[in-house]
Amino acid sequence: MKKPASGGRTCLAIILAAGEGTRMRSALPKVLHRIAGRSMLAHVLGAVEGAGASRVEVVIGPGRTDVAKEAATFSPSATTVEQTERLGTAHAVLQARPALEVGAEDVVVAYADTPLVTAETFARLRAPLAAGAAVAVLGFEAAEPTGYGRLLVEGERLLAIREERDASEAERAVRLCNAGLMAIRGDLALAILEAIGNANAKGEYYLTDAVEIAVARGERAVVVTAPEDEVAGVNDRTQLAEAERIIQTRLRAAAMAGGATLVDPQSVHLCADTRIGRDVVIEPHVVFGPQVEIADGVTIRAFSHLEGAKVASGSVVGPFARLRPGAVLGEGAHVGNFVEVKNATFGAGVKANHLAYIGDASVGAGTNIGAGTITCNYDGVNKHRTVIGEDVFVGTNSSLVAPLTIGDRAYIGSGSVVTDDVPSEALALGRGRQVVKDGWAKGKTKSR
Amino acid sequence: MKKPASGGRTCLAIILAAGEGTRMRSALPKVLHRIAGRSMLAHVLGAVEGAGASRVEVVIGPGRTDVAKEAATFSPSATTVEQTERLGTAHAVLQARPALEVGAEDVVVAYADTPLVTAETFARLRAPLAAGAAVAVLGFEAAEPTGYGRLLVEGERLLAIREERDASEAERAVRLCNAGLMAIRGDLALAILEAIGNANAKGEYYLTDAVEIAVARGERAVVVTAPEDEVAGVNDRTQLAEAERIIQTRLRAAAMAGGATLVDPQSVHLCADTRIGRDVVIEPHVVFGPQVEIADGVTIRAFSHLEGAKVASGSVVGPFARLRPGAVLGEGAHVGNFVEVKNATFGAGVKANHLAYIGDASVGAGTNIGAGTITCNYDGVNKHRTVIGEDVFVGTNSSLVAPLTIGDRAYIGSGSVVTDDVPSEALALGRGRQVVKDGWAKGKTKSR
Amino acid sequence: MKKPASGGRTCLAIILAAGEGTRMRSALPKVLHRIAGRSMLAHVLGAVEGAGASRVEVVIGPGRTDVAKEAATFSPSATTVEQTERLGTAHAVLQARPALEVGAEDVVVAYADTPLVTAETFARLRAPLAAGAAVAVLGFEAAEPTGYGRLLVEGERLLAIREERDASEAERAVRLCNAGLMAIRGDLALAILEAIGNANAKGEYYLTDAVEIAVARGERAVVVTAPEDEVAGVNDRTQLAEAERIIQTRLRAAAMAGGATLVDPQSVHLCADTRIGRDVVIEPHVVFGPQVEIADGVTIRAFSHLEGAKVASGSVVGPFARLRPGAVLGEGAHVGNFVEVKNATFGAGVKANHLAYIGDASVGAGTNIGAGTITCNYDGVNKHRTVIGEDVFVGTNSSLVAPLTIGDRAYIGSGSVVTDDVPSEALALGRGRQVVKDGWAKGKTKSR
Repeated sequence: MKKPASGGRTCLAIILAAGEGTRMRSALPKVLHRIAGRSMLAHVLGAVEGAGASRVEVVIGPGRTDVAKEAATFSPSATTVEQTERLGTAHAVLQARPALEVGAEDVVVAYADTPLVTAETFARLRAPLAAGAAVAVLGFEAAEPTGYGRLLVEGERLLAIREERDASEAERAVRLCNAGLMAIRGDLALAILEAIGNANAKGEYYLTDAVEIAVARGERAVVVTAPEDEVAGVNDRTQLAEAERIIQTRLRAAAMAGGATLVDPQSVHLCADTRIGRDVVIEPHVVFGPQVEIADGVTIRAFSHLEGAKVASGSVVGPFARLRPGAVLGEGAHVGNFVEVKNATFGAGVKANHLAYIGDASVGAGTNIGAGTITCNYDGVNKHRTVIGEDVFVGTNSSLVAPLTIGDRAYIGSGSVVTDDVPSEALALGRGRQVVKDGWAKGKTKSR
Repeated sequence: MKKPASGGRTCLAIILAAGEGTRMRSALPKVLHRIAGRSMLAHVLGAVEGAGASRVEVVIGPGRTDVAKEAATFSPSATTVEQTERLGTAHAVLQARPALEVGAEDVVVAYADTPLVTAETFARLRAPLAAGAAVAVLGFEAAEPTGYGRLLVEGERLLAIREERDASEAERAVRLCNAGLMAIRGDLALAILEAIGNANAKGEYYLTDAVEIAVARGERAVVVTAPEDEVAGVNDRTQLAEAERIIQTRLRAAAMAGGATLVDPQSVHLCADTRIGRDVVIEPHVVFGPQVEIADGVTIRAFSHLEGAKVASGSVVGPFARLRPGAVLGEGAHVGNFVEVKNATFGAGVKANHLAYIGDASVGAGTNIGAGTITCNYDGVNKHRTVIGEDVFVGTNSSLVAPLTIGDRAYIGSGSVVTDDVPSEALALGRGRQVVKDGWAKGKTKSR
Repeated sequence: MKKPASGGRTCLAIILAAGEGTRMRSALPKVLHRIAGRSMLAHVLGAVEGAGASRVEVVIGPGRTDVAKEAATFSPSATTVEQTERLGTAHAVLQARPALEVGAEDVVVAYADTPLVTAETFARLRAPLAAGAAVAVLGFEAAEPTGYGRLLVEGERLLAIREERDASEAERAVRLCNAGLMAIRGDLALAILEAIGNANAKGEYYLTDAVEIAVARGERAVVVTAPEDEVAGVNDRTQLAEAERIIQTRLRAAAMAGGATLVDPQSVHLCADTRIGRDVVIEPHVVFGPQVEIADGVTIRAFSHLEGAKVASGSVVGPFARLRPGAVLGEGAHVGNFVEVKNATFGAGVKANHLAYIGDASVGAGTNIGAGTITCNYDGVNKHRTVIGEDVFVGTNSSLVAPLTIGDRAYIGSGSVVTDDVPSEALALGRGRQVVKDGWAKGKTKSR
């Protein structure tokens, strides 16, 4: 993502993240629900930082250490402040008073449950402040405006935000609506916010009043518009799924624009941080968890699931492959069906094509892992590593009991349980000898 | 589902299920084709019973014991009657003459190939009868009415159903069309049905004539409307897929409203009887077969397939897990990739995370099933059970040959074939000893 | 596909396939990108041949032996010619001058990056030539015509193709646009093509000029129309995905019309050559690679992946099955979860239901392949075959080390490594004997 120009101005972003989200019907705070592998809060943190926020204050619900932790994890420089009383959006913003007192040239107010607003849009919202506007409000043309606050404009100027209940018939015909997000010039922000009163039916302090206050002071307020689906809030699981769909559509389009083929884009699930190279082919039904990097020229076959994996160029993954965190595939490696790789490094050209579990291991270049091979990395208490050299042939159905080292060009016989190290170029067998009892099975198998 | 109020009135539902469905191009009778894991006939049985039908008569094709059996399986109290001649819908309804003679306050006529009509709609269709109407017809506003019978109304009264071929130009402009479903007041039903003649081009007895007959008798006929997609019939496989899509959309919305996250709802396939708790997260690409119950707080990861399984709270299933009938997971159990569980009970915290088949077994709490473990439950003739105690460590690639009992805290070495019972806290090994032949593999593996 | 009538006329198809496709951002030539398992070029080859082309000339970019090879592979009788200079579409067509000099009654010009045009449409495009027209142009009603050449008609006659930049305001209002494809009467083709000049801004020879030249000669030009989505070109990966979607929709509809149930059609991915019988049920999330044949009455369960496989009637595949090239299943065979079959023939009723890899093998009728069975077909250098007789019982977790022959009704004990042939009705065991060390595990497994 190109970092939008911030005009060099300092910017304080205040993210309101204290909503309870009861319509989610969840024990998890709403803003921690995930979209494309990332919490809604993190999406908004990423967007305001991408738009040049130099300081971020997150307003959280009382005692919500989980929300504070998520903010700190995603943006170590972000700080949090609790909102102990719920007295309206302006009141929530004023919880960030210390940061507002320190000041910034621009102040941006964002909502952690409005996760689709892009960095570009936040940058556009800031832009009028540099040109002297006191307040910039994010608006959208509503397909069905009923219920939204209408933005009353005269030319380019925003005169007021009129709530549905207070609107005249003519005003109700206005389709330009308030998305809730706002940018305020830093030198005016505190004064404007403190001037907001609560003389209304609910006795709450509404951020929307900032517009009329600024205008009354002779300042200029403006509207910046965005598409309706970008400013959609998430209040229930259906809206969460819809937001996920929109983000996925963006991520898929970016991957295709970058030169990847998504045979059936709708069936490919990406994470916000998935990195996909050029001439990558992704077959239908593939899921990417967090922290995956796919180099140029890789083929990800159908029904593959990747998390925390790095795949070098020319590799083929799947179908039915599972790469778990720490899987690192070298150039031209093949990981095939019903194979799980976890915390393991594969050298160039390694093949593990059938029904295998390779965990806590390193596998040298050119080695062939037979069908059914399993690294026994857990002894019930601890995990141990398996180190396999180059050009090793691991026969089918082998059990490699870690800790274990197998030398280069060694050969493991099929069905072996290997408990001791194997020198280079040695043959290791660990299996019973075959015995045959003639005629024993007479009548023992079903006759058709 | 809240049972709709039936006003306490008795109700006979007659379901027409004799259609041959040649456009399905199938050896299976049309009404036995499935949607969301349930036959179309069963969907209609469930809807009329949900609307308070106290007696259900299913009119089936001659010799269709398979249809009769499906009716009896889903609704043991439903009875069936054969329609040996195909002389029109009214004639089909009259095959239920004995039930009509016994009588009921309301008679509802439904079609087994119109499976999307909800219990709520059937209840709304009955409601006018309690208010004195003789006949209530289900209608819909057709996007493209050509070909449908038009409902001719005057205020709230239905005057007639006009077939396309008999309609004037003005009548053809009417978009309110006949969906075919009807409710008739029980005290009039037999008389009205018997008054229907066959003096028409095809010589058939049409149920639609009931409206004009009732009106001619001075009775009141009314229209009850439903959305067009709810009254769609299924005549070919494309329409079957479209009906499936509509039902899936309903089921997914209900799951999300109940507090489950469906990351990509379109990729999750539910059954009509799937039960999903709150704060359940269902990743993309998950298929639920019949009779699955998921408790609160469960995560179902991508590419999982569940049938006949019960999953307790806090469990994690998948990715790539297969739970088959009789799989019962205790709290916090983990069933991971490429693991199949069939007819097996897992205690709390059991882990079977990689490439395993556990069938006909019970596994005690805290036990760890190593990668590649397989219960050998079939000896070619019979199935046997494997009983595993608590806190057992089953090493990787173990073969557990049933019948077998493994005591608590026992330890099974990797790669063992276990044929005899293992006492508590014992170590069991059943594998060949490793031998190594130095230098044997020189030149035996490929050089890169 | 019904072969469209060609009226017995000879037909030369010239396919322009020299475009570089830089917007694909790919090292692969654009026309070799695949849709439904088949290159775009092959789709167009199939369509023109289906429309009766008796000779096909493919105009390729300089040195594009890969494109030439693809043409020859799909259509052995097709010939290729290189276009070394890029001087416009008419110039490209004239690269086929030798073929044009040999002549044909009809000449059809197609584009390898316009892969959705059907054989039926190409046949309709040819039809006016038989009725005396000199040129037939494929047109479409554009939802948004800006940028396209407009087709200026008078009654049925096409007068000219007007490029956007040369169009009057009235002409810009025309929505009938030029799709680029054209049929030219063979006896006029060379003369018309040679009359096309390059006196235009870009100095290129435009095929569209053929219309005005023909009209100026007193010949008749006509328009044949097709839906806009059928004539869409593919220039980037997003358009490639959209073309894939359209072809998949066609293939799914054809499968359903033929009597197959696709429970969730959007999640089933077909190839252009997939053959599916009647009363086949395909569950959600199934991928068909090239060369798959499914007989009547087969069930393909969810999450299955099939390539190069033949499945006989009554078989059940999946869920989670992978059939690779050379997999041939007999009647009533079952291939279940996490089972891979490659280059292997299964007799009637064979069951391989769990976690197995069967490659380079033949399996006799009635044989049961236990869970975890693996054919060890590769010794690090060569592949070998496993021959299993009828009614054999292969115990779980067996390793069958090829080359190997197992006789009829033999019985392989669980966990065996079988390296030597097993006679009919014999029991074979190859595993360690179980030893138990009482109390050894005391304190070795975790306490919960």
